[in-house]
Amino acid sequence: MDDVTRRNITQRLASAAGHLKGIERMVQEDAYCIDIIRQIQAVQAALQKVNIMLLDNHLHTCVTSAIRGDDPDEREAMLQELTSVFTMSNSL
Amino acid sequence: MDDVTRRNITQRLASAAGHLKGIERMVQEDAYCIDIIRQIQAVQAALQKVNIMLLDNHLHTCVTSAIRGDDPDEREAMLQELTSVFTMSNSL
Amino acid sequence: MDDVTRRNITQRLASAAGHLKGIERMVQEDAYCIDIIRQIQAVQAALQKVNIMLLDNHLHTCVTSAIRGDDPDEREAMLQELTSVFTMSNSL
Amino acid sequence: MDDVTRRNITQRLASAAGHLKGIERMVQEDAYCIDIIRQIQAVQAALQKVNIMLLDNHLHTCVTSAIRGDDPDEREAMLQELTSVFTMSNSL
Repeated sequence: MDDVTRRNITQRLASAAGHLKGIERMVQEDAYCIDIIRQIQAVQAALQKVNIMLLDNHLHTCVTSAIRGDDPDEREAMLQELTSVFTMSNSL
Repeated sequence: MDDVTRRNITQRLASAAGHLKGIERMVQEDAYCIDIIRQIQAVQAALQKVNIMLLDNHLHTCVTSAIRGDDPDEREAMLQELTSVFTMSNSL
Repeated sequence: MDDVTRRNITQRLASAAGHLKGIERMVQEDAYCIDIIRQIQAVQAALQKVNIMLLDNHLHTCVTSAIRGDDPDEREAMLQELTSVFTMSNSL
Repeated sequence: MDDVTRRNITQRLASAAGHLKGIERMVQEDAYCIDIIRQIQAVQAALQKVNIMLLDNHLHTCVTSAIRGDDPDEREAMLQELTSVFTMSNSL
């Protein structure tokens, strides 16, 4: 992963973690449940963007080199991993 | 919100925030992208459980008192809020 | 359910069923997989709208009368049903 | 797409279309809204499986040949398509 992507992703993860700390305070201060749910949905959406950045990076690096490589087993394992990530992401 | 639910929810949020800190380190240490995606999906699933706990609490408190109350506008606003949370949660 | 809502929902369901027939032909004619996936995603989105219309109708009818009613067990069953529909919809 | 996969996918699509016809009747016969929502969720889940089969087929055919091919633009277009399908599927 190049440095720019790494820094971008770590900043987003740090921001999401900080956001969750703020939501914790909302719960402790008895904020309105729907407001809390909406804040959590915003964190979920932010994490979804990080997953897409990671997938894009993965496609351009590991997947491309495995598929262009000469090991059919490695290629097959890579493709099955992509399908399982797609399946999992839909069940969230 | 009763104390038991509040403590349960705040613990889950704190755990999710801590989990994200760990994922940040995975990114900095160039962990395999698919492993990172799976960890983020675990956090998203944990946050989904928190949302369901919040919804359940909201249904049993604010929604019930508003619907049993005498203000039709308050009742209508409450129902529209539920539909919008349902809509938003599906677009994540 | 009032007649207008019923007609609206049945038309959307009929349209989704017709859309699936068209997608079947795409598969038989060896259309590009990504194009087929996108068409299926359009049907899924259309079905999601129908679910939201049904939920909205349910909130304004059965849920409201059960919560305003005098049977706490019926009320509790209704609230648990809403939480389970919310949970299920998120796992799709 | 090989014949076995094609027949499997077309049968699933035909079954989903038939299921929607049945759900239409439920609406016309004023079935309970939550029961209708659950039936629609079953169709959505079935369509999700078809999408995963299509993605798997696509990965093993078009994506593999494009990535192993010599046209970097075609390769890049293929990777972006995968990311966009992943993004779209999460917003359903």
